[in-house]
Amino acid sequence: MIHDNVEKAKKGGGCPSQGGGDMAQKQKEQEAMIKSNLAKIKHKIFVLSGKGGVGKSSVSANLAARLAQKGYKTGLMDVDVHGPSIAHMFGMTELLDITPDQQRLMPKQINDNLKVVSVQALMQDKDQAIIWRGPAKTGMIQQFVGSVEWGELDFLVIDAPPGTGDEPLTVVQNIPEALGVIVTTPQEVALADIRKSISFCKTVKLKTLGIVENMAGFTCPHCAESIDLFKNGGGEKTATEQGLNFLGSIPFDTRVVAAGDNGKPVVMEEAESEFTKAFETVVDNIMEKL
Amino acid sequence: MIHDNVEKAKKGGGCPSQGGGDMAQKQKEQEAMIKSNLAKIKHKIFVLSGKGGVGKSSVSANLAARLAQKGYKTGLMDVDVHGPSIAHMFGMTELLDITPDQQRLMPKQINDNLKVVSVQALMQDKDQAIIWRGPAKTGMIQQFVGSVEWGELDFLVIDAPPGTGDEPLTVVQNIPEALGVIVTTPQEVALADIRKSISFCKTVKLKTLGIVENMAGFTCPHCAESIDLFKNGGGEKTATEQGLNFLGSIPFDTRVVAAGDNGKPVVMEEAESEFTKAFETVVDNIMEKL
Repeated sequence: MIHDNVEKAKKGGGCPSQGGGDMAQKQKEQEAMIKSNLAKIKHKIFVLSGKGGVGKSSVSANLAARLAQKGYKTGLMDVDVHGPSIAHMFGMTELLDITPDQQRLMPKQINDNLKVVSVQALMQDKDQAIIWRGPAKTGMIQQFVGSVEWGELDFLVIDAPPGTGDEPLTVVQNIPEALGVIVTTPQEVALADIRKSISFCKTVKLKTLGIVENMAGFTCPHCAESIDLFKNGGGEKTATEQGLNFLGSIPFDTRVVAAGDNGKPVVMEEAESEFTKAFETVVDNIMEKL
Repeated sequence: MIHDNVEKAKKGGGCPSQGGGDMAQKQKEQEAMIKSNLAKIKHKIFVLSGKGGVGKSSVSANLAARLAQKGYKTGLMDVDVHGPSIAHMFGMTELLDITPDQQRLMPKQINDNLKVVSVQALMQDKDQAIIWRGPAKTGMIQQFVGSVEWGELDFLVIDAPPGTGDEPLTVVQNIPEALGVIVTTPQEVALADIRKSISFCKTVKLKTLGIVENMAGFTCPHCAESIDLFKNGGGEKTATEQGLNFLGSIPFDTRVVAAGDNGKPVVMEEAESEFTKAFETVVDNIMEKL
């Protein structure tokens, strides 16, 4: 059973040198499972950021929701072991179902075209911290990526944890054909981290579709004046400097925060908002680059 | 030489079972070094968060700066290997100096009472991503914590990477007497992650001084009306629910973003701002709990 396997991943997942042939065999089986699982998915988009809190999860959630609205069969997978937000953003409170043969996880069907799965859904106590050293996390992510029964998909959007450590590395190694979308906010402290993400993509040879600038600009709900909360223009400047596509700028919107807490991404609720319009440009730019 | 040792940590740092007695001996020496290094520091404050982007680094920077202003000998250490922001926040662009015996790192002296050191300062190319698996990071953090020549200090503020993974775990294991300060923003998605941080602190038996709510409330610079960017009150509510102290609420301020980019924490520049006043309450509450 998958939930049991996760328990095992916590305990095991030690050094690759330990365990010998049995481990190697299991590793091979897992890789084959991941391969066959992902073969039925046309495009894999890997949403990453150098810094946490730039809205990577809300960009992932809205991107997947918008692709689904456009009629594409879309999956969304959250692999952030330490802070999985996607489950919360879609109001997923229960453990995921398992296929009748008990071998695979069933993603949650949000609507006709959208399925969502989160590492969170594997945890019995959602407030429990995952205090795992790197190798255990790697094992869990591999298990997780290989275990979801997606069926045929046009798009799989993968919400990675921030940074350039074990988790994104594991995902890239297991899904080498994924295309990166890098999310940043406009201020220099965030851009410094994003340059690390770009360096990460280059080093691990992950092809990138481009950079999205999030939380750029804000309209005061009282006086309608524009406020640059986190400065502006930094995303586009960095894209130009680094020779990457600039996919668009998305404004800050308190409704995104509320929507994140209420279990429905903004693009599903507020078709006419500035956020949704700006997001549409990003989606168009991504489609064009594929 | 320390910079060479960091190179070695990248290459080595494998499984503890490998290398045998030599590794065990080195490990012992490193632990002894950390112990003697930290013995001269009265209070260690470990600033942590479940989610990235909640302003943990700016809280750490302003906390250290304010303690120094109050006359305490203060050190600030950034151990976020993937996104070290502290160096940027203090305008530190050069590699750190090394003691004449080439054995230790000299922190940068910001003013009479404040010294700062960042993992960033060990890297030749600051835009390079650190793509290290867990064990290599653990090795580097241990090396780093043991290597800084702090001298006598009243306070050491430690800016940890977000989450509950390898890095915070390594710090806690090496500095068990540290006291945690948990930073969050008010919205539920962030609070869900902070409950994980609290669970982390309980599991690893890290004593916590309390919770700071950051980016709570914002005053429009045009019409002076108040806006809840990330909702409000969630930090205090979570503190109450979890039986922890609430240390105070800090407003969002675009000057904090600008200050972060310009190399000087806000409390050093804007003595009369709302931010500085709110921060003063947090510092007073921390002092009271010590």
